[in-house]
Amino acid sequence: MEGKDTPLYRMRHSLAHVLAQAVLEIRPKAKLAFGPPIDTGCYYDFLFDEPLSSDDFRDIEKRMKKIIRQRQPFEERHLPGADAVRLLEERGETFKAEYCRELIERGNATIGFYTNGPFDDMCEGPHLAHTGEIPEHSFTLDSLAGAYWRGSEKNPQLTRIYVLAFETREELDEYVRRRKLAQERDHRKLGKELEIFLFSDDVGPGLPLWMPNGTVLRDELENFAKEVEARAGYQRVATPHLAKESMYIKSGHLPYYKDGMFPPMELEGESKYYLKAMNCPHHHQIYSHRPRSYRELPLRLAEYGTCYRFEPSGTLAGLLRVRSLSMNDAHIYCTLEQLESELISTFKMIVSYYEKFRFEGIQVRLSTHNPEKKEKFVDNPELWKFSEEVVEKVVKELGYTYHVGEGEAAFYGPKIDFQAKTLLGREETLSTTQLDFAQPINFDLSYVGEDGKEHRPYIVHRAPLSTHERFLAFLIEHFGGAFPTWMAAEQVRIVPVAEAFVEYAEKIERALRENLYRVSIDRSHNSFNKKVREAITSKIPNILILGDKELQSESVTHRRYSVKEQRTVPFAEFEALLARWRKDRVMDNCGEE
Amino acid sequence: MEGKDTPLYRMRHSLAHVLAQAVLEIRPKAKLAFGPPIDTGCYYDFLFDEPLSSDDFRDIEKRMKKIIRQRQPFEERHLPGADAVRLLEERGETFKAEYCRELIERGNATIGFYTNGPFDDMCEGPHLAHTGEIPEHSFTLDSLAGAYWRGSEKNPQLTRIYVLAFETREELDEYVRRRKLAQERDHRKLGKELEIFLFSDDVGPGLPLWMPNGTVLRDELENFAKEVEARAGYQRVATPHLAKESMYIKSGHLPYYKDGMFPPMELEGESKYYLKAMNCPHHHQIYSHRPRSYRELPLRLAEYGTCYRFEPSGTLAGLLRVRSLSMNDAHIYCTLEQLESELISTFKMIVSYYEKFRFEGIQVRLSTHNPEKKEKFVDNPELWKFSEEVVEKVVKELGYTYHVGEGEAAFYGPKIDFQAKTLLGREETLSTTQLDFAQPINFDLSYVGEDGKEHRPYIVHRAPLSTHERFLAFLIEHFGGAFPTWMAAEQVRIVPVAEAFVEYAEKIERALRENLYRVSIDRSHNSFNKKVREAITSKIPNILILGDKELQSESVTHRRYSVKEQRTVPFAEFEALLARWRKDRVMDNCGEE
Repeated sequence: MEGKDTPLYRMRHSLAHVLAQAVLEIRPKAKLAFGPPIDTGCYYDFLFDEPLSSDDFRDIEKRMKKIIRQRQPFEERHLPGADAVRLLEERGETFKAEYCRELIERGNATIGFYTNGPFDDMCEGPHLAHTGEIPEHSFTLDSLAGAYWRGSEKNPQLTRIYVLAFETREELDEYVRRRKLAQERDHRKLGKELEIFLFSDDVGPGLPLWMPNGTVLRDELENFAKEVEARAGYQRVATPHLAKESMYIKSGHLPYYKDGMFPPMELEGESKYYLKAMNCPHHHQIYSHRPRSYRELPLRLAEYGTCYRFEPSGTLAGLLRVRSLSMNDAHIYCTLEQLESELISTFKMIVSYYEKFRFEGIQVRLSTHNPEKKEKFVDNPELWKFSEEVVEKVVKELGYTYHVGEGEAAFYGPKIDFQAKTLLGREETLSTTQLDFAQPINFDLSYVGEDGKEHRPYIVHRAPLSTHERFLAFLIEHFGGAFPTWMAAEQVRIVPVAEAFVEYAEKIERALRENLYRVSIDRSHNSFNKKVREAITSKIPNILILGDKELQSESVTHRRYSVKEQRTVPFAEFEALLARWRKDRVMDNCGEE
Repeated sequence: MEGKDTPLYRMRHSLAHVLAQAVLEIRPKAKLAFGPPIDTGCYYDFLFDEPLSSDDFRDIEKRMKKIIRQRQPFEERHLPGADAVRLLEERGETFKAEYCRELIERGNATIGFYTNGPFDDMCEGPHLAHTGEIPEHSFTLDSLAGAYWRGSEKNPQLTRIYVLAFETREELDEYVRRRKLAQERDHRKLGKELEIFLFSDDVGPGLPLWMPNGTVLRDELENFAKEVEARAGYQRVATPHLAKESMYIKSGHLPYYKDGMFPPMELEGESKYYLKAMNCPHHHQIYSHRPRSYRELPLRLAEYGTCYRFEPSGTLAGLLRVRSLSMNDAHIYCTLEQLESELISTFKMIVSYYEKFRFEGIQVRLSTHNPEKKEKFVDNPELWKFSEEVVEKVVKELGYTYHVGEGEAAFYGPKIDFQAKTLLGREETLSTTQLDFAQPINFDLSYVGEDGKEHRPYIVHRAPLSTHERFLAFLIEHFGGAFPTWMAAEQVRIVPVAEAFVEYAEKIERALRENLYRVSIDRSHNSFNKKVREAITSKIPNILILGDKELQSESVTHRRYSVKEQRTVPFAEFEALLARWRKDRVMDNCGEE
């Protein structure tokens, strides 16, 4: 919520009074509790003798508008504490009286009241000059909810009325539209409806199980990243999900990061083992298993590994805060001279992914060290200066919008976050790149330079596609579950218009399956229209409608998701289209052809 | 080792005496210990006053052959215990005397001795009639090794001489050839040389880290299996690597299988968590997250998941016995009526994989229950009868060689193992299929049948490609590290014949990389011949040699691994060949075109 001194705050606060005033007109015996302004408008809590329902909203709104039109001035006055309590008790406002006594105990000598028209409320303000300053068309009663007095379930349950209120009608409409879209697209809702992932009590909180539809999304993302990174000279590795305690002592994660890791497994007579919370130490084992030459650098080791982090169960939320993180993590081992060009390619790769998925509002945040706080950052002023200069230079040259967060770097080097917006406008940090000059020392990593001497490599940690969990949550909401053909779990749904065309449908299905398209025939006894509707509800990108015309001409009638017009084309032409969409990863869900 | 009454046993045993006799000719003060026949010949342990080396082998062999040609008869006699001890002590045979006393203590009244020519040894026999029955050309002195008397390091260290001995010269040669091949192809040796995998002290024993070359092998295997199984109607899932204790109590793995699992992680205030040792319980969560209809069956859920099993560190061996198992595990949920056809497709899939990789000597082992041992097997005679009949019928119909192991089934249903042989002749169980009628009950799995009622599904567990660890160990040895192009970590090595052709080489490299082939240019300053030799040592399936002729005609000279002749072909033709080999997964390393 913005500060108390803004016109918007005053408007929302004043509106809360007008709401209470209108409600009291139809429920004169209601007792008032709190009624503050909030980020999206305001609310007021009531104890009703006779229940209220959203059916009453129209009536209340009408009364509120009438009060607004009356331009009732808000008048402030202060009463001595004892007088205030007596006044509230006389009115039967038990909640207000209780709070008033508390304010007195806290040392308030006088208690503020605001009056407008016949309505008088204990209140600290501030308010508008009069009710007429409230824009009459940019608020609406939103919903009812139960709420306990002072938030404690030991107290009486009250009824809360939420009001949405903005400065203009357009803002109100835009907020309502986005909220509706966000609710429809909530990844938890779509994840369930589209059978993408589930949580199981027997497996544990924060540990998603990916159902077949979700696994297709993961696999397609992985294949995409693997192709992009193979072309960019990355090599892939695969490492275990755990390691001995000694490795995390060496890496410096123990004891400092212990709370973020799962508790250890104690192997009697051997060692404690920890689930890996990050892939880097494992990759360093591969780097250092034999001497490296400068000729091998930059060495880029990538892995789609799953890491496990302990998050308190209360903080877990859908896919956005989980305990298992599947990451396309890579570590670039390079010389100081190679750092700039490695950063350029890393950032360009990140942006190319974002452009592919049509993310907007790309912003960069550079986290640098604070030379004053020597205990928070590796003590190597030269390397910090060099690294931070390189990073800023690269970001500037590439022309990104960026902010600098001084003192927000990691202990071991500067950090570069890329943020993007979903189509819904939600902003999220999706890619983090970190420079590291501490781990090469901890793991005694080296390479033999052209000069025949040993040198320390520099490490770049990067994960352009975030974790599967976070990225897919973002993508589900971004696309509202309607994925492009190349990613879609079911790419083609075949709908024969009658039983007679099932045989033809099966022929088409076989031909597509043979080429590894994900396709099915609707064999239900539903009506044709219902079949098409169901395919649309399931957000399947391509529907093929097969009837006599299509059978006779070896063609298919192709209807795309959310594209109204449908086209009848030879089957070979359709398959060629599919092949191109798959190979080039065309974003046909965004209208691309 | 075969029984004592076979001619081969007698021959090897007699040969041990001849060995000792010959050795005593050149080291008359040597003391004899044990000298038994073994699977590959025999050995004899000696305590030497003056050390022996393998340089003495020729001399000893010559003396042995002379003894053989003398056709010295073996004569047996028995001495009373006390006389035997006295005789041995007089000769200074302290080891023999010690053992003799032990035999007497165990109740032997008399002690056997065998004499041939001047050689007399305490021995129970049996032996050949005379030394001339030993085939003179089918044995050879193999190696020297240190060995403690009676195997205890508290005792004196002896020198063991190993002799290889077979019935014919051909068998000896074949054994030597195979052993050499097996040593050269040992997956631990090749795994290191070809940089396929490594173990790290900081990660822990039995937990391989797959280097880039090994990860390519894993990824290619996975892609292959994913394609095969997508066509066969499997759906893929991805599940966490751990679960709450409650799941493994439900599954029945705890407490019975506890020793085979990693110790738990205790989350305070929550639950114990275990690393998964098998994927099935996780898959059951996906099966049962909503009601299932018979229309959805068979439902085939597959996952390339990594499981963790605790094996004592002393039993770990290369990739063959590890603690992390990456498996292409799948669970088929089906009706009783579908069981037969699901088994048929499963077995056919297994065999098609084996044929692809040219495995030979495919054998099937059916493990059935034992109706007498009611405590070892789920009590459901009808289901056992039905399942075992179905399994045997299918295996018979498909015409596989099979054996029945009664009483070797799992607790919950019959088991079918497929065994194969490497090109080296090593046999291994690579694929296990299990029927399960216990877990559907434990997890209360059901489906609604055509009759509208709830039924229990049947589960088939199957993993045709074993674990990555076991399968790749097998494949590395089978192919001696020379993989087909589609699997090879480096598919093409480009060798320009001079600096002048590096530019052309780079053009070819770019063109291949763009199409995601794994290719590199040898840019070293080595000679041309050395470059080619190095590519062959690295077992790269295709070498492209580029010089003036090739540059002028946009062609490449293509040399295949282990194929002597090389061909100059237009680059486009070579690329088309590569494309076909990759798409069809051609086994060009086995001579396929």
